[in-house]
Amino acid sequence: MHKNRLEAFSDGVIAIIITIMVLELKVPKGDNIISLQPLLPVFLSYILSFLLIGIYWNNHHHMLHAAKYVNGKILWANMHLLFWLSLIPFATAWMGENHFASFPVAVYGFVQLMAAISYFILSKALIKHHGDTSMLATSIGSDMKGKLSLVIYIVATFTAFLNEWIALGLYVTVVIIWFIPDRRIEQVITKDL
Amino acid sequence: MHKNRLEAFSDGVIAIIITIMVLELKVPKGDNIISLQPLLPVFLSYILSFLLIGIYWNNHHHMLHAAKYVNGKILWANMHLLFWLSLIPFATAWMGENHFASFPVAVYGFVQLMAAISYFILSKALIKHHGDTSMLATSIGSDMKGKLSLVIYIVATFTAFLNEWIALGLYVTVVIIWFIPDRRIEQVITKDL
Amino acid sequence: MHKNRLEAFSDGVIAIIITIMVLELKVPKGDNIISLQPLLPVFLSYILSFLLIGIYWNNHHHMLHAAKYVNGKILWANMHLLFWLSLIPFATAWMGENHFASFPVAVYGFVQLMAAISYFILSKALIKHHGDTSMLATSIGSDMKGKLSLVIYIVATFTAFLNEWIALGLYVTVVIIWFIPDRRIEQVITKDL
Amino acid sequence: MHKNRLEAFSDGVIAIIITIMVLELKVPKGDNIISLQPLLPVFLSYILSFLLIGIYWNNHHHMLHAAKYVNGKILWANMHLLFWLSLIPFATAWMGENHFASFPVAVYGFVQLMAAISYFILSKALIKHHGDTSMLATSIGSDMKGKLSLVIYIVATFTAFLNEWIALGLYVTVVIIWFIPDRRIEQVITKDL
Repeated sequence: MHKNRLEAFSDGVIAIIITIMVLELKVPKGDNIISLQPLLPVFLSYILSFLLIGIYWNNHHHMLHAAKYVNGKILWANMHLLFWLSLIPFATAWMGENHFASFPVAVYGFVQLMAAISYFILSKALIKHHGDTSMLATSIGSDMKGKLSLVIYIVATFTAFLNEWIALGLYVTVVIIWFIPDRRIEQVITKDL
Repeated sequence: MHKNRLEAFSDGVIAIIITIMVLELKVPKGDNIISLQPLLPVFLSYILSFLLIGIYWNNHHHMLHAAKYVNGKILWANMHLLFWLSLIPFATAWMGENHFASFPVAVYGFVQLMAAISYFILSKALIKHHGDTSMLATSIGSDMKGKLSLVIYIVATFTAFLNEWIALGLYVTVVIIWFIPDRRIEQVITKDL
Repeated sequence: MHKNRLEAFSDGVIAIIITIMVLELKVPKGDNIISLQPLLPVFLSYILSFLLIGIYWNNHHHMLHAAKYVNGKILWANMHLLFWLSLIPFATAWMGENHFASFPVAVYGFVQLMAAISYFILSKALIKHHGDTSMLATSIGSDMKGKLSLVIYIVATFTAFLNEWIALGLYVTVVIIWFIPDRRIEQVITKDL
Repeated sequence: MHKNRLEAFSDGVIAIIITIMVLELKVPKGDNIISLQPLLPVFLSYILSFLLIGIYWNNHHHMLHAAKYVNGKILWANMHLLFWLSLIPFATAWMGENHFASFPVAVYGFVQLMAAISYFILSKALIKHHGDTSMLATSIGSDMKGKLSLVIYIVATFTAFLNEWIALGLYVTVVIIWFIPDRRIEQVITKDL
């Protein structure tokens, strides 16, 4: 079974998810800078989600590039990932429109956590199908960043109930982690552990 | 005539259908768990439709993978399928927003039934074009699951007027059937008949 | 310059156009058959537009399949077509929500007319680029159906002001024309002229 | 790393952006020509943005056609471009619904400016990766039109506060520049400088 349509379908769904978020930036009534102000939290949430979904697309692109074939389990593991990604626009809008209130910030973290878990499951399904010594398994490697993101989302989801700004800071941290070249991350982590 | 653009177009339409359903998850006013509660039936309907559309994409992927060429009739049989799939977001939202009232549940079943029938027509058009002994015909086989789904949708659509929960249970049954490996299904059915 | 991305982009835009029309089927308040009734004209308009856009996709598919290369003019002739197609969801919803009132029905015809003209321009640009004796020119041929549709849209747009039902009947006629095999159409036309 | 999925994903996002703008053409209540009148500024804004996004797609198509491979930086430079393009529907609707008031017109120019800058960054990242003497670098060339557009957007954004119609005239000028064949533009510019 070929992977092309899996890639094409995922591209389509991710492209739509990343774009419909912008529909939540509702056109304000006024025509001055003050009328834009209430949109600021929605806009900031949009940037955060745009980056996080962009990271998923990027990683998905790399992982499936290294993949050679897919099976039924992989198709459904991918569907599972797309399901959680599809909830990000809702979580983003709810968090933004409530000016980063505790509960919506926690729900946002939970949705991101589930997306991270489903990505992890997808990567395991792919490795199982290709073998531990395959190019795919090597290219995914220990997936330090993925595991770290997962832990951060768990912490952030609970932290949101205590202080939503710390939780938000943790989400931003995930973005930063993925923008740092791999080697540095691994150096830091192996030093610390 | 090549099948590539047929696949690409279908992927695009199915990707949009599966994603715009999420737009019916309207961002609630409140910022707590209670404000999420009224969304629950819409969310559950979303999960059901996400799975059912996912199954269609999966089957469509397999069937067209085995296909070698398409003709005008196949293009329109495919359009017919996409038409009924495109009504699923409407049926899903109506069912969810009315907390699974009888009539919307029946309409949901009817739309799924029409989608199942149009999928059946598409598979017949493909087999006719490729021949009964083609790899495509062999891979579609007796399509027990497809026929069973069709019967269940007919029963469920009528049952909805008597008891909507039984109808919903039948929709969930369709999902389960498709997740069970083919062999077991056929064993059970051949035993029963 | 290759045609692949032109096809992919057009597929994407047409897939979105055909799907967002369904968003105009607003979920009704009630949960019975009576609450569906006001949606009927919107639904019928949707079927009409779905078929007409389906015909465009089908023809576009065939025409570009026969094409070998594209140039800047062709890219823009294609954009021009997509522009008018993108207005069909608006025209469809307006016509449906006003229960086929004269003026919206005329606007619908005008948008379809402009789409037909822009398709004609695109086909001419493609023929010019490939030569009159190319496979593409031969496959497009005299394009009787295209020219006939164009004339019908002109007539229908004006007729809508006198009687909107005749105009609608003419739109349906266009759909029927495209579903009749080519040879019959040409036989009838050559007899009549 | 191959460029195919980068192209496919960008096609998807741009197709959605160009199409969801049409959703801002809200179906009017009335059924006559007068009820269409308030939509005129939104419609004109739509045409302007459709053309500008069309130009981006066209240029993106050409630039990536000449590209041979992509890297992580290029993926993110592309994401950055898509981010700013995704804000165009919002800016378009806001400008249109406020009948071209100063501030929304300036914001529109700013969004277009940022899109132009991000396109410039993407082209630099691609040239860096392929080398100054590559076919890609040669095909991008001095990118006079790109630089000119960038300058016009800066001027227009500020001009909008003095006179919004001059700013709009400048946006239209950008469209015209891109429709004039390259050679003429360069002749005029090299004469003037």
